[in-house]
Amino acid sequence: MKTALIGAGNVAWHLGKALHQAGHEIVAVYSPTEATRHDLAQQLPPTTPISTLDLTQVEAELVLIAVPDSALASVAANLKVPSGTIVAHTSGSQPLEVLQGIKGARAGVFYPLQTFSKSKPVDFRTIPILLEAEDELTLRALQEVASTVSSEVHRVDSDKRKQLHLAAVFACNFTNHLLGISRELLQQAQLPDTLLQPLIQETIAKAMLQHPFRVQTGPAIRHDQNVIDAHLHMLADQPLYQVLYRLLTQSIQAQHPQKPQP
Amino acid sequence: MKTALIGAGNVAWHLGKALHQAGHEIVAVYSPTEATRHDLAQQLPPTTPISTLDLTQVEAELVLIAVPDSALASVAANLKVPSGTIVAHTSGSQPLEVLQGIKGARAGVFYPLQTFSKSKPVDFRTIPILLEAEDELTLRALQEVASTVSSEVHRVDSDKRKQLHLAAVFACNFTNHLLGISRELLQQAQLPDTLLQPLIQETIAKAMLQHPFRVQTGPAIRHDQNVIDAHLHMLADQPLYQVLYRLLTQSIQAQHPQKPQP
Repeated sequence: MKTALIGAGNVAWHLGKALHQAGHEIVAVYSPTEATRHDLAQQLPPTTPISTLDLTQVEAELVLIAVPDSALASVAANLKVPSGTIVAHTSGSQPLEVLQGIKGARAGVFYPLQTFSKSKPVDFRTIPILLEAEDELTLRALQEVASTVSSEVHRVDSDKRKQLHLAAVFACNFTNHLLGISRELLQQAQLPDTLLQPLIQETIAKAMLQHPFRVQTGPAIRHDQNVIDAHLHMLADQPLYQVLYRLLTQSIQAQHPQKPQP
Repeated sequence: MKTALIGAGNVAWHLGKALHQAGHEIVAVYSPTEATRHDLAQQLPPTTPISTLDLTQVEAELVLIAVPDSALASVAANLKVPSGTIVAHTSGSQPLEVLQGIKGARAGVFYPLQTFSKSKPVDFRTIPILLEAEDELTLRALQEVASTVSSEVHRVDSDKRKQLHLAAVFACNFTNHLLGISRELLQQAQLPDTLLQPLIQETIAKAMLQHPFRVQTGPAIRHDQNVIDAHLHMLADQPLYQVLYRLLTQSIQAQHPQKPQP
């Protein structure tokens, strides 16, 4: 499908390459920054780097908007496309409606659920792509494109995407913060940063195979009050971590009010 | 080194096999349960399965105690060894002192820092082994043995092992709990359990390569109060998760009081 990319950041970079490799023609790449749009266009010949959001002369059937959330409304306000063009954004946290003011466009969402860096190659086939569209025909067109680059294509409306984002905050943002606290505690004890890595990797691997609540270990689930008290005491100088420890312990114990079988 | 294993659970199973493969002779395996000691002894010929803690007639230079923490004191109280035998436990949370009542023994700790299941093979060479001993000679003997099975051998005293355990609670137990909450939120939204797995794996991989505080993402670090408020509202029926969300957000923002550069 003839596609134009609005944006030349991390998402556009990886998505553009995946679409190109799947045989789609990337007819144009827009970025306000000259170097950036030329860089990406070079990866996706015979693409034209463009510096305007007027796409009425560009023969694209699909326009993918991969810009920061904060720029999305302004891009939508200025984008011009021929009537009947599918226009989809790639944001996990923005609703479909943000595109519904674009005259003549068939609005959709094409959200690859992964974090990207230009320097790190990804296997796009394993990345879930979450789709939404204002009508069935548009959805089906997006499904066709998505299935050429990923084997994990899901239809997820804006409301569910919000719930997914909340789940991701717990699983990724908050988890990362706990790993940071752990690293800090290792450094305070003058222990090597990498010491816990095999254990962390095994913990995550187990949590992928079974529901994490079923493989929970540690002093909280054992209701081992001696160890819990000792840990709280060790955190006396770091009151925010101490409160976090207390609350996470309480939350684990709320799941498991009884001591499990030994 | 001629070694006796006290215990035939997950740790003894993997550690015994690793020592056997490294050429150490496992002369005896103790477990109170007949089937269990025979099972493990079969993996480590010509090992003798034994049902007594009197090891005075067993020619072991090293006795490794791999029993649950709750059984350690009782094993130590009943163990009999020839004078000069090195006796080490494999627990991360127990001090060296728990072995110091064993008459004639040279006490040590031989702690493989990993979670084990009998059904899952492990690459022992990548597993950190943390050592402690009551004297230098004993430590050196343990170092020699440990380095035949692992390339990550560290000397860590009981005090530091406690701090390590606290760090592990954050990095593994608490992280696992957050992954469980995330899974629950996905289920509530009737989204597939596996949807976030590629993103989780990438998040962990990034947190291994750099200090997690430096690669933090999400609404908390962006100080994106609209999204934070919306998430707190979505958690209104799950007050414990709501408090956790609020506190983890606060802790992330305490690290990053300013909005980072866009």
